[in-house]
Amino acid sequence: MKIYTKTGDKGQTSLIGARADKDDLRIETYGTIDEANSFIGKAVTELEEEKFSDILRDLEAIQHELFDCGGDLAVVTKVRNYKLTEEPITILEARIDELMEEGPALERFILPGGTPAAATLHIARTVARRAERQMVSLMKQHDDVPVIVQKYLNRLSDYLFAAARVVNARSGVSDIEYIRGAKVFHTDKESK
Amino acid sequence: MKIYTKTGDKGQTSLIGARADKDDLRIETYGTIDEANSFIGKAVTELEEEKFSDILRDLEAIQHELFDCGGDLAVVTKVRNYKLTEEPITILEARIDELMEEGPALERFILPGGTPAAATLHIARTVARRAERQMVSLMKQHDDVPVIVQKYLNRLSDYLFAAARVVNARSGVSDIEYIRGAKVFHTDKESK
Amino acid sequence: MKIYTKTGDKGQTSLIGARADKDDLRIETYGTIDEANSFIGKAVTELEEEKFSDILRDLEAIQHELFDCGGDLAVVTKVRNYKLTEEPITILEARIDELMEEGPALERFILPGGTPAAATLHIARTVARRAERQMVSLMKQHDDVPVIVQKYLNRLSDYLFAAARVVNARSGVSDIEYIRGAKVFHTDKESK
Ligand code: B12
Ligand code: B12
Ligand code: B12
Ligand SMILES: C[C@H]1O[C@@H](n2cnc3c(N)ncnc32)[C@H](O)[C@@H]1O
Ligand SMILES: C[C@H]1O[C@@H](n2cnc3c(N)ncnc32)[C@H](O)[C@@H]1O
Ligand SMILES: C[C@H]1O[C@@H](n2cnc3c(N)ncnc32)[C@H](O)[C@@H]1O
Ligand SMILES: [Mg+2]
Ligand SMILES: [Mg+2]
Ligand SMILES: [Mg+2]
Repeated sequence: MKIYTKTGDKGQTSLIGARADKDDLRIETYGTIDEANSFIGKAVTELEEEKFSDILRDLEAIQHELFDCGGDLAVVTKVRNYKLTEEPITILEARIDELMEEGPALERFILPGGTPAAATLHIARTVARRAERQMVSLMKQHDDVPVIVQKYLNRLSDYLFAAARVVNARSGVSDIEYIRGAKVFHTDKESK
Repeated sequence: MKIYTKTGDKGQTSLIGARADKDDLRIETYGTIDEANSFIGKAVTELEEEKFSDILRDLEAIQHELFDCGGDLAVVTKVRNYKLTEEPITILEARIDELMEEGPALERFILPGGTPAAATLHIARTVARRAERQMVSLMKQHDDVPVIVQKYLNRLSDYLFAAARVVNARSGVSDIEYIRGAKVFHTDKESK
Repeated sequence: MKIYTKTGDKGQTSLIGARADKDDLRIETYGTIDEANSFIGKAVTELEEEKFSDILRDLEAIQHELFDCGGDLAVVTKVRNYKLTEEPITILEARIDELMEEGPALERFILPGGTPAAATLHIARTVARRAERQMVSLMKQHDDVPVIVQKYLNRLSDYLFAAARVVNARSGVSDIEYIRGAKVFHTDKESK
């Protein structure tokens, strides 16, 4: 099987249901989702099964969900059967709550880093946020895109933050607080 | 020698033959090529010489070729002696065929990841694709850019995919298939 | 504490002093600064304390300074107390000079890579340059942004280059020169 089909050598490529320029914002967005997915795949290689089985389970589910996101963005047919539902978002929220509970108290920004896996999770966090920003642009450009993908990406970056903190905590590594910052994180009651 | 010349502190910089704004699409594109190159440099550090000497040889050649690409994009003089030729593309194609032959059969999307080196190759793949998208934009903006660079980047991302699969296979690690996906990869005859 | 506030699920988010679309160039720019910061956090995990205590000290200072940059870009109130000053730039320059002095002579481009930490520093270098390019765009869009951030990012990428070279040199790893390149680096006298 030849994976290179040469059909994209003129700058156009295929969606599901049409062709588009490779620099189309839709393709840009799922390209970045693919990039975020790849960093998550990297983090997986840096986490030991024994200590982080819960997070590894989360990350594998997320990798599949990111394919759901990418696939949903690629469909431009009239009838569309979107794959991403609210359910994985609800699950992410429950997991964020659990992980924030487990991690140390948080008041100030922390420097991204610590253990190798946590550092990679922070990178994945920033790439997921880049994908989210492109998704927001895409939603302005088209009103028939699955907006739930933005919500998913928004929650995903918070999950990755929470996971990075727990990875460091379980590894006995303390996050370093940003020194010239104020108390930026607020509890439910205070936050507006 | 001072490498910081301070000449770029006002937002302009030099091409070969002119000055340009730092956010010029041309500079954006070779900046991303530099980023892809750096991830390939990272993958090189994760591959053992004995098991992966062929892939290491490929990657070093690719690193030089990416400098050819970047340099060709930086030239805006009247007379131009482009460095990138069709030859490295033909070589990449031959190597993709060999690696796809060696790797396990492929029908469905696979989660990016597996071994550390394969995970990094998947990251490099997505960054090469980002560079390709910018190159496509650049080709729309200017009709005097070396379009062969886009073809090279297109093939490069397929090479990196094939190499990631072989790295995992030789390491005895199975790629995980995307569960909610159909059979998306097609053999020559089926594909259109 | 809930870190996900759901307030950004419609594509808008908060600056310090206003709300903005998530794809606003200001947010894009500090998002990329956050990404560069995360790669620096990764490099930190790859450097041994004994051999690289000076560089580790630099990198931790830089991580805080990148938060200063991001915070300064987020402020849109009338009265602004910017955090980033010229001082860290002067310090970076002194450190670049020291590291370039220590590293081997440099005439030609080198392939990004070598040791794992140097490879990551090269990646961070290219991401810092991406942030710089966005900062240049932002400066065109608004004339009330702290332009010193661009200067800082410009110097930062040169610092990361110098540091990558020294990391390889101290590790006994030679950088590979780009073969089809000319002598591109020039001493003070020659350079224009
Ligand atoms: C394009 C470019 C890049 C590209 C590389 C492009 C690519 N190939 O992918 C990228 C973006 C990767 C890059 C990165 C960097 N770059 Co740069 N880059 C340039 C640029 C614009 C052109 C260099 C080039 O390829 N020239 C083409 C060569 C072949 O042309 P040439 O040197 O003029 O040579 C021609 C003739 O002069 C003649 N010739 C050359 N030498 C000789 C010798 C003899 C004896 C003879 C007869 C003729 C001859 O033949 C050549 C063929 O045409 C120069 C600025 C400039 N305009 O020169 C900066 C420049 C070389 N870069 C610079 C810097 C600092 C960097 C970075 C360190 C920045 C960073 N922090 O990341 C990195 C280093 C990367 C690395 N891995 O080594 C500085 C170096 C400063 C200094 N003190 O010398 C320069 C000078 C820019 C500046 N600030 O003024 N760069
Ligand atoms: C979207 C897409 C991507 C996205 C993935 C989207 C996501 N989910 O996130 C991204 C950007 C990640 C991607 C990456 C790649 N892709 Co892609 N991708 C596509 C694309 C456009 C759609 C694939 C898809 O999801 N289809 C949806 C499926 C479910 O639809 P379907 O296959 O048509 O199936 C429907 C029906 O046909 C039916 N059906 C399907 N199978 C069957 C079977 C039976 C028995 C029945 C009854 C019905 C049935 O049911 C399905 C439901 O609607 C295709 C091109 C195309 N238009 O098909 C390329 C394509 C599959 N990709 C291709 C390639 C090469 C790649 C990459 C290797 C590129 C690279 N170098 O990075 C990577 C591999 C990634 C990986 N990890 O495996 C090639 C494969 C070439 C080949 N020889 O087959 C294709 C064909 C594009 C091309 N060049 O022509 N890709
Ligand atoms: C800018 C910003 C960022 C930037 C950081 C900027 C930088 N420095 O580079 C970036 C993009 C990196 C970022 C990332 C994140 N952020 Co943020 N960020 C903000 C934002 C907009 C401003 C924070 C800030 O720097 N404020 C400046 C400080 C100094 O101002 P201040 O807190 O108002 O304090 C001033 C006064 O109030 C006073 N003051 C402050 N404290 C006190 C105390 C006393 C006793 C007194 C008298 C006065 C006083 O003095 C200060 C000086 O002016 C806030 C939202 C907001 N508008 O506050 C969110 C915010 C703090 N972030 C938030 C989140 C969730 C995150 C991330 C986890 C997102 C993610 N998933 O990646 C990460 C965490 C990063 C990390 N490593 O820790 C949430 C926190 C939610 C919560 N439950 O509290 C907020 C509140 C946004 C929201 N959703 O509403 N963020
Ligand atoms: C924590 C802070 O990060 C900013 N913010 C919110 N969403 C994103 C995103 N996708 N990318 C970058 N920055 C973002 C907002 O300013 C928020 O208040
Ligand atoms: C495999 C699928 O990936 C998409 N595609 C093709 N080229 C690129 C690129 N440079 N970046 C992101 N996505 C791309 C197309 O939709 C193709 O069908
Ligand atoms: C070394 C060369 O890199 C280019 N250059 C300068 N600043 C940037 C940046 N932020 N991103 C990418 N390329 C840049 C210029 O062409 C310079 O001459
Ligand atoms: Mg958010
Ligand atoms: Mg392609
Ligand atoms: Mg510079």
